[in-house]
Amino acid sequence: MLLLAGSRSWAQTNAPADDSKPASSNVPGQQYPRIDSELRATFRIKAPEAQKVQVSVGATYNLTKGEDGFWTVTTKPLVVGFHYYWIVIDGVTVNDPASETFFGVSKVSSGIEVPSPGEDFYAVKAVPHGEVRARWYFSKTANATRHCFVYTPPDYDRKPRLRYPVLYLQHGMGEDVRGWSTQGRANIILDNLIAAGKAKPIIIVMEDGGIAAGMGGRGSRGGGAAPGGAPAAGFPQILINDTIPMIDATYRTISDREHRALAGLSMGGTQTYQITQANLDQFAWIGTFSAPFGFPDLKTGYNGLLADPKAFAKQVKLLFVSMGTEEAGRMGGSKTFHEALEKAGVKHVYYESPGTAHEWQTWRRSLHEMAPLLFQN
Amino acid sequence: MLLLAGSRSWAQTNAPADDSKPASSNVPGQQYPRIDSELRATFRIKAPEAQKVQVSVGATYNLTKGEDGFWTVTTKPLVVGFHYYWIVIDGVTVNDPASETFFGVSKVSSGIEVPSPGEDFYAVKAVPHGEVRARWYFSKTANATRHCFVYTPPDYDRKPRLRYPVLYLQHGMGEDVRGWSTQGRANIILDNLIAAGKAKPIIIVMEDGGIAAGMGGRGSRGGGAAPGGAPAAGFPQILINDTIPMIDATYRTISDREHRALAGLSMGGTQTYQITQANLDQFAWIGTFSAPFGFPDLKTGYNGLLADPKAFAKQVKLLFVSMGTEEAGRMGGSKTFHEALEKAGVKHVYYESPGTAHEWQTWRRSLHEMAPLLFQN
Repeated sequence: MLLLAGSRSWAQTNAPADDSKPASSNVPGQQYPRIDSELRATFRIKAPEAQKVQVSVGATYNLTKGEDGFWTVTTKPLVVGFHYYWIVIDGVTVNDPASETFFGVSKVSSGIEVPSPGEDFYAVKAVPHGEVRARWYFSKTANATRHCFVYTPPDYDRKPRLRYPVLYLQHGMGEDVRGWSTQGRANIILDNLIAAGKAKPIIIVMEDGGIAAGMGGRGSRGGGAAPGGAPAAGFPQILINDTIPMIDATYRTISDREHRALAGLSMGGTQTYQITQANLDQFAWIGTFSAPFGFPDLKTGYNGLLADPKAFAKQVKLLFVSMGTEEAGRMGGSKTFHEALEKAGVKHVYYESPGTAHEWQTWRRSLHEMAPLLFQN
Repeated sequence: MLLLAGSRSWAQTNAPADDSKPASSNVPGQQYPRIDSELRATFRIKAPEAQKVQVSVGATYNLTKGEDGFWTVTTKPLVVGFHYYWIVIDGVTVNDPASETFFGVSKVSSGIEVPSPGEDFYAVKAVPHGEVRARWYFSKTANATRHCFVYTPPDYDRKPRLRYPVLYLQHGMGEDVRGWSTQGRANIILDNLIAAGKAKPIIIVMEDGGIAAGMGGRGSRGGGAAPGGAPAAGFPQILINDTIPMIDATYRTISDREHRALAGLSMGGTQTYQITQANLDQFAWIGTFSAPFGFPDLKTGYNGLLADPKAFAKQVKLLFVSMGTEEAGRMGGSKTFHEALEKAGVKHVYYESPGTAHEWQTWRRSLHEMAPLLFQN
């Protein structure tokens, strides 16, 4: 019975339920992959000459060849949210031509958006929309022209006398400057929160974390790269010396630490701990989503400030820590850090995304939970 | 000798010259494809279990398998500029994992940027940069939220009292709202022209041409689609009724026809003829790059205005027509139209891009030639 169940979940061949619909992450007009009401995905690809076709979407499934040369499989129910996936044709991992692509795991990848019943905080709605602006600027530190994305809230151009607080929001390892506005939908999440009066209008700056050589995106070309997969030495300096001054000179920001936040996911969370500890004069609001390591020491962290919870709470307006309930091991380190903070009486906000792992649904929800808390006092 | 040459160009196995470099269109860090000084590209992909691997980059090349499981090929010299390409693994056409992706031919595709010696008008330089803004808005005509890109020139935010003329710039069939700012580099071309004092600062609006079902991009989801591959009936109405009023209400435009241009490439050129003939009260500047059909009749076109060259020249400040010298057949129709205009004494500007076909290098050069002429009188 157990064996049968195991076999069934790794090589599903059931047809999708009749209520299946094309994934919203497909190229327009593509009918596959499609997702049914049980959140099972059916993949389909034409490969009459291939010997073996698989899909890697968390688990790996073997597709079955039909007489028409199409290979298909229906998966077990998928977790809600966005998942990277790949097709493996005779051992070669490639993208599904039916999918849009997303920069993740250091390359352009297919992605599937699994709807989350009753959860629409990241859906495009008929509300006023902000802009996501591609901004090029020269970085002296990197000695290169860099490229970041800047979210400006819906009324930015209509209220030319207003100034706004700024959230610097970083992606994870193997992702790049595009992550938060495509996979993450940061702009849509803020549009909806602002329209509902639940978050203050803010500017969000999405820069490139200056990832290891071969692991960065377009934004990191020519600058900020470091070998070995570690957060680049250059990025904190670029952010502090070049990005923040450029943003403050270009956009109508409120340019003090009380109106500046830094947050990031995974590697970006680790960078957030690193950068805010070294530059607490620059940021009063801190968020880390699924940081895998780099947690501040409770005795020495933040130059010893963490050891004085009262002084820390005065200096740090928000320390937001989150992860998904399905994250474990190193990826689950945030829970341990939260428990230590709790025990030491350090004021912070902890959030766990139910049922999700080290993936974008955890980080969308984390942003959705954190944004209403930002710049509120 | 001929056979040998033919064979050589279709199944090159020569190593690249020592001076080869990774293509700038690669995912950062990827060493292949690489291009040598003779503009020959070398492709390389690991596929130890595959029976046959090809690359389709204009011509189709067979790759040769090495003992290490890597398949490679070096092509004949490629034409300068941007080309879509695909890897064919055991008969399945997929993207090269080493390449960034670009929305073209109705799907996400690999692309290779072949450098053009001595031609750098579309290179990112140390000049002031404008922004490319992703703008969401509700279209009553489409009954959907749409998504377009808006280029604002470098000084837009610094000179809040200035107003700007607007160029509406359309992509081709199978491409979408992303084409002009990624493959086309429209923003970089304008940044460089404006910095050199060769073009006026302008706003560029890049909307989705509302292509056939399954041929559109994200921008067209939910609206403007028509079957059969023809320009959608809906797009002209969306542009006139919704997009232009939204742009004039949202950005600091000069909102009369003397300060509004419409241009497009391929299908976008055909749409430009269609829309400007029906709405000459809205546009005084017209550009078509590689339009394949839909050329106005010299007797009846523009409501008969074309038959009166003097009146036409008074109404239409610019009629810019272009194509590549390597375009033939229907794709070469612009030359025939130009010759007819010439013969009829209709004032226009004709440009031929030397050595290029129905591809982005033709359209980058066309924009670079046309932009300095816009809004100059």
